[in-house]
Amino acid sequence: MKIENLNDLFVHTLQDIYYAEKKIVKALPKMVKKTDSPELAKAFESHLTETEGQIQRLDQVFEMCGEKPKATKSPAIDGILEEAEELMSEIKDPDTRDAAMIAAAQAVEHYEITRYGTLVSWANLLGMKDAANVLGQTLKEEYSADQKLSKLGEGRLNKEAAA
Amino acid sequence: MKIENLNDLFVHTLQDIYYAEKKIVKALPKMVKKTDSPELAKAFESHLTETEGQIQRLDQVFEMCGEKPKATKSPAIDGILEEAEELMSEIKDPDTRDAAMIAAAQAVEHYEITRYGTLVSWANLLGMKDAANVLGQTLKEEYSADQKLSKLGEGRLNKEAAA
Repeated sequence: MKIENLNDLFVHTLQDIYYAEKKIVKALPKMVKKTDSPELAKAFESHLTETEGQIQRLDQVFEMCGEKPKATKSPAIDGILEEAEELMSEIKDPDTRDAAMIAAAQAVEHYEITRYGTLVSWANLLGMKDAANVLGQTLKEEYSADQKLSKLGEGRLNKEAAA
Repeated sequence: MKIENLNDLFVHTLQDIYYAEKKIVKALPKMVKKTDSPELAKAFESHLTETEGQIQRLDQVFEMCGEKPKATKSPAIDGILEEAEELMSEIKDPDTRDAAMIAAAQAVEHYEITRYGTLVSWANLLGMKDAANVLGQTLKEEYSADQKLSKLGEGRLNKEAAA
């Protein structure tokens, strides 16, 4: 797909985050399996449900643009998840691994925050208020997921890893 | 390097962001060359100076840990920069390319925000208050750089690309 204007770039970025969300849906169950913490497992599981809803919202936005939902390979999310998987398999101590998984999940959240933030801004510039609203709902969820992970990280889990 | 506890993970993550900062120092001048906007060029140039200061802060933190500064390959930042370079070379329209570069620079900022946020939190858990302060200064700069880019993106540049 040739990117000639902001509308093309908007659709391209939708395809990028669509790819990312689909990869995250596959990564989260692996993270649930890797943690011994019921609290962290629950956080990953609830984010999985949330992510499935976010994919449905992207389907809606593709429709609003008159485009079929499509994923475009994103080297960025591939790299973020590759780094996460490397650490998850290397670290044997469960509490240290949990600390690394929280950090990895926050890196994923921040990737989503930046992409959805950009998409909301561009949807507004393109006069697509409905799309901006739908994407803004997901952006809000991503900020909240990141904050939950910060609290988990600063709480019990990391304290155990530092002990 | 084997990661057996939170201290090891902290040092590993310092090496990760050290690698990232060194790559960013190389990427920013390319971005300055690719933009026709003096405003955006100035933003990238001033972030380059800021990044050089952030590398010096990392040198200080390595010293506080009794470690020599070292970079560890980060597939995450490599992927984020690869995606940015792909878009920069593919897009021919200058205003659309500027919009893409602002988005790419914000993806880089958010990677730094998440890693420095994690490092500050771990430094506090490990009782390294001085390291937390030094890293916290960089974290503040990254948030502010991201906000400046948002304003640039919502201002003149993207409006031209949407026209």
